[in-house]
Amino acid sequence: MTINRAATTLVDVPRGLAGVVVTDTRIGDVRGREGFYHYRQYSAVELARSRGFEDVWHLLVHGQLPDAERRAAFAAQTAALRRLPDEVRSALPAVAAASALSGPLAGMRTALSLLGAAKGFRPVYDIDADRRRADTLAAAAAVPTMLTALYRLGQGLDPVEPREDLSYAANYLYMLTGSEPEPRCARAVEQYLISTIDHGFNASTFTARVIASTGADVAACLVGAVGALSGPLHGGAPSRALDTLDAIGTPERIDPWIRARVLAGERIMGFGHAIYRTEDPRSRMLREIAQGFGGARVDFAVEVERRVEAILAELKPGRELHTNVEFYAGVVMELCGLPREMFTPTFAAARAVGWSANILEQAEDPKIIRPVARYVGEEAPVAVPAVR
Amino acid sequence: MTINRAATTLVDVPRGLAGVVVTDTRIGDVRGREGFYHYRQYSAVELARSRGFEDVWHLLVHGQLPDAERRAAFAAQTAALRRLPDEVRSALPAVAAASALSGPLAGMRTALSLLGAAKGFRPVYDIDADRRRADTLAAAAAVPTMLTALYRLGQGLDPVEPREDLSYAANYLYMLTGSEPEPRCARAVEQYLISTIDHGFNASTFTARVIASTGADVAACLVGAVGALSGPLHGGAPSRALDTLDAIGTPERIDPWIRARVLAGERIMGFGHAIYRTEDPRSRMLREIAQGFGGARVDFAVEVERRVEAILAELKPGRELHTNVEFYAGVVMELCGLPREMFTPTFAAARAVGWSANILEQAEDPKIIRPVARYVGEEAPVAVPAVR
Repeated sequence: MTINRAATTLVDVPRGLAGVVVTDTRIGDVRGREGFYHYRQYSAVELARSRGFEDVWHLLVHGQLPDAERRAAFAAQTAALRRLPDEVRSALPAVAAASALSGPLAGMRTALSLLGAAKGFRPVYDIDADRRRADTLAAAAAVPTMLTALYRLGQGLDPVEPREDLSYAANYLYMLTGSEPEPRCARAVEQYLISTIDHGFNASTFTARVIASTGADVAACLVGAVGALSGPLHGGAPSRALDTLDAIGTPERIDPWIRARVLAGERIMGFGHAIYRTEDPRSRMLREIAQGFGGARVDFAVEVERRVEAILAELKPGRELHTNVEFYAGVVMELCGLPREMFTPTFAAARAVGWSANILEQAEDPKIIRPVARYVGEEAPVAVPAVR
Repeated sequence: MTINRAATTLVDVPRGLAGVVVTDTRIGDVRGREGFYHYRQYSAVELARSRGFEDVWHLLVHGQLPDAERRAAFAAQTAALRRLPDEVRSALPAVAAASALSGPLAGMRTALSLLGAAKGFRPVYDIDADRRRADTLAAAAAVPTMLTALYRLGQGLDPVEPREDLSYAANYLYMLTGSEPEPRCARAVEQYLISTIDHGFNASTFTARVIASTGADVAACLVGAVGALSGPLHGGAPSRALDTLDAIGTPERIDPWIRARVLAGERIMGFGHAIYRTEDPRSRMLREIAQGFGGARVDFAVEVERRVEAILAELKPGRELHTNVEFYAGVVMELCGLPREMFTPTFAAARAVGWSANILEQAEDPKIIRPVARYVGEEAPVAVPAVR
């Protein structure tokens, strides 16, 4: 007889907990059939079109858009949190050196862990809502500083100290390159970042909430989420779509290249999404942003998209397959001078805000998330054999 | 209409996924009513009584106890993995300095993240079973080296390099203190470590499996697990039971101290367990180990246990409340010279082996663990208000 929990009946559910409702949320949702997703009660894409990153960050962690006074206070509060504690800053060269093999997400994982320790983040159940929120702000505000410092150290360059007078997005590009970005680039990246803050209940978000449900500190939750995001099944690597553009190379090669892949049953990176059965709403917005920049690269991307859709309609009729967020996200980030290895970390920086909102929401519910496993091995106990 | 996943029916289950079967396992189980738990088909306590740590580690990650030849090879393989890569070793002083506020679990979290990056751990789905296992061995073998180095650095002492000629447990104590431990201490700590490797499907184990299910690397999984273990609701802080002994102080104070706590409805640290309705089998074994050492501290602990059970039987009849693993684990670790701040990290070092087995088992199942959330906020979309 196997009893996992003395007083609990076992409940069988679909594999991977697919469709199993683990929590209620007021943070947002994805409506795959409608091609729509939202943060709180607002369309995420409309927020990206009309608001700044700090406004949406405030919406996520405070539950409402800020008025003018709150916006200024929130911007000042988060800008002041960009500078890393000395103990973290001085450790970053060693972190960058140790992470050279593993890329910037592994470095982000380490640096966030270090930041939480240095700031003395407390277990989320030991502190009140304001202090928990302050810990999430300290972490999410510091992520761009860590990421850009780790990137520059990896390139043999000195890190660039953050500036408090720039917006989150402009400061991010500034710390990456050392020069103030063109306003249209800062705004394009800001819109990408806003559109990427949250997207339903994905695996990294779930990880953050499981860890939060034990009462662990904010850094523990974020570090786990970064780990889950790094998993290949989590999906998402905006640089892969650019790799597709590069592999095709020139417009006349589009048709044979795509046909060969489709006929071989291969996936084309940048196309298709597990949830959307329509165009990905993020893709539509990012295409428009890219087209605002214009140029040969953008024209080529648009042509690839057009031809892929036409060839799929011909060869795989009835399958709704469109560009996903990766496709034009890659194009936009390339236009704004972001190196490819920073695409996924940039995504993770935005997602840190979504994880923050989820950690804060989870911390309101003092119930640990802990399912059970069913033992199906050889019946125990078998006597331990003598040492041979 | 809210649709989380295009093709999935929503399934409502108990809060916190209590009793929800997320996976089958062949690693082990806890039978709370019987006061019994097992690793594979063997009683965990019997393994702790009759085997060495390396044997049980081999059982967990290879699925079977080793014969003499395999034991020697496994011991040599894991002993050689104790030494940290230079990039990690040289970063530890900075990690220790940054973690001074947050304790050694936060340092372990950072150091494991760094080790995974430095070793270039690959996503678990990108590599074969042997390579995945090798990554778990590299991580679990290095944990004592990290923990003892971080502890000593925090005390202003130089780390002690690992020795390959000592057993896992003896080397752990050696690196902590700088001198070879008494054999009975090495064995007592070894038995504690074995008894702590795994214990059913707890929150940190679940966290490791969720992260593994995305395909992330072994370090990502372990770092998340350490984070979950650090949560107060995960339970487990063997030093708290010693705090109880210290607070009581002398035998004549036992009765008034315990009565006051019980009548006030307060929890007594070191007593009670969520699953066991009988004596905790770990507690029984650790009591015997402690009594093998003998002395006034042990006699006092046994007397406290006896009086607490008697007073609870009188004041709360019908409640089965016994010492849990913390109570005598704390006594044994104190007898063996482990400082209190190393109690939970020592527990985590053993648990790294249990997490390893769970990561390896999860990696055999290429299905992401991803439940859903039900959006219950204000209906969307509401038009985004103009900036005020």
